[in-house]
Amino acid sequence: MSKAAPTETERCIESLLAVFQRYAGREGDSCTLSKREFLAFMNTELASFTKNQKDPAVLDRMMKKLDLNSDGKLDFPEFLNLIGGIAVACHEALVVQAPPR
Amino acid sequence: MSKAAPTETERCIESLLAVFQRYAGREGDSCTLSKREFLAFMNTELASFTKNQKDPAVLDRMMKKLDLNSDGKLDFPEFLNLIGGIAVACHEALVVQAPPR
Repeated sequence: MSKAAPTETERCIESLLAVFQRYAGREGDSCTLSKREFLAFMNTELASFTKNQKDPAVLDRMMKKLDLNSDGKLDFPEFLNLIGGIAVACHEALVVQAPPR
Repeated sequence: MSKAAPTETERCIESLLAVFQRYAGREGDSCTLSKREFLAFMNTELASFTKNQKDPAVLDRMMKKLDLNSDGKLDFPEFLNLIGGIAVACHEALVVQAPPR
């Protein structure tokens, strides 16, 4: 079966799945991010965001806010809300920086 | 200022922003996907999904479902719901294919 090269969007979806599985698979339930796995993800994959936060409790609050069903873990849809939230914040910052003519 | 190479997650967020802007910028409001821009996105970036849909009305229904405020256009958060929905569907298919031991 011949297979076309993945598009940018397909590569992105694959990346999201791979990154989630890489961190969720570290300990315990491999389908969810524990608090420790979430912190490892934030301090590695999003270090440029995390290191700018002056309040050390910000990651605790983010975890609580993202954990919609309050089970102390993040499942894949909850993880995607994090990525989506950051993407929307970047998008809004870009739109503010460069308003459409 | 030295700048570290972006992580996989950062590259992915950048891709989502770039792809949305590429299609949203084609006509009219460059901050939203018109129906025509949505169809161009689906038939190019997600062609491997789109070409497997036997019902030609499926893209119409997707657009309606994604367009939460029913303005006939998709803004960036609405676009992210599409990407998230596909990612969750892929994740669930993978988990079913390879259940955790």
